Amino acid sequence: MSYGQGYNPYGQPGGGYAAPPGAFPPQNSQVSSQAQQWFAMVDRDRSGKINASELQAALVNGRGDHFSDNACKLMISMFDNDASGTIDVYEFEKLYNYINQWLQVFKTYDQDSSGHIEESELTQAFTQMGFRFSPEFINFLVKKSDPQTHKEVSVDQFIVLCVQVQRFTEAFRQRDTQQNGTITIGFEDFLTVAIGCSY
Amino acid sequence: MSYGQGYNPYGQPGGGYAAPPGAFPPQNSQVSSQAQQWFAMVDRDRSGKINASELQAALVNGRGDHFSDNACKLMISMFDNDASGTIDVYEFEKLYNYINQWLQVFKTYDQDSSGHIEESELTQAFTQMGFRFSPEFINFLVKKSDPQTHKEVSVDQFIVLCVQVQRFTEAFRQRDTQQNGTITIGFEDFLTVAIGCSY
Repeated sequence: MSYGQGYNPYGQPGGGYAAPPGAFPPQNSQVSSQAQQWFAMVDRDRSGKINASELQAALVNGRGDHFSDNACKLMISMFDNDASGTIDVYEFEKLYNYINQWLQVFKTYDQDSSGHIEESELTQAFTQMGFRFSPEFINFLVKKSDPQTHKEVSVDQFIVLCVQVQRFTEAFRQRDTQQNGTITIGFEDFLTVAIGCSY
Repeated sequence: MSYGQGYNPYGQPGGGYAAPPGAFPPQNSQVSSQAQQWFAMVDRDRSGKINASELQAALVNGRGDHFSDNACKLMISMFDNDASGTIDVYEFEKLYNYINQWLQVFKTYDQDSSGHIEESELTQAFTQMGFRFSPEFINFLVKKSDPQTHKEVSVDQFIVLCVQVQRFTEAFRQRDTQQNGTITIGFEDFLTVAIGCSY
């Protein structure tokens, strides 16, 4: 690991690892007109709900590729409180704000707006989010996201990585009572975290 | 946890947790005629390769529902050595044998051939595979598999659970040098296992 002895392993104290800065604004019943307009465009069957397929049809990266099934399902599942597989306009606004925060980070490093970033840029992005990851770990994330060429991470894979890192970091932190970057964990608890945070 | 002091937490010594008994037969270049027939049926575009969509079109549970996207992608990914998103007939035969082993376990408990089993049957199935899980953990798995009604596990979700449990158990076991059901693990190693074993 790249951080020194006694260093907070999750990054800067109070840093943005749990959620991007500014995400999850205080809940109220007013949905912004911008989110409402987006919702109306994405909700193609006018059901008043958006499912993963509708979200996928609306989201493309800089090269015109649609976001992956997995990324869209993951994003829906994060705000789908009744496990219906769909989100309403209020849940959508939260997703919209949440995703925009990650996108701001991503765009900073995707300078040609291709919708893809490379390993060194992923390192910088996680650093900006307050993480200090080793080069080996960043390399592992790139290979996981791009199993064929091992070179670059698309915007939807970036969102998936951020959500995974966030979820597992939160689960780890709850168990790291000494805040020293090491936990002791039993078999069933380990399985529960690993399976529970998967999507 | 339900196992006693000093008990092997993964179940019976030499039990079938790493893979169902009889799975992964010795590799040879001869593909059984049964697997070849199946492959020809599933490979609808005659490309000589099967992708997750073709697999999904071929697989239904007892109620006529197709297997989930995730289950089919997971199954392909397990034998897709070149990360192409497809498997050839040799890889397919391994998948075919592998899945058949889990199905034998599942069918033992799915007595009305509905393609679904309930919580008590899932407990028995894992016990047969050599695991000793607490009722709380089994309940968690059922809720994870059936987020809406919390009642039953479909055959494809069962396969996903078995693969997840198997992968994470293997990762845990490698780190459990004392074989006492508890490990000490650092932050990046934890993230690597959790994200690496996800699909």
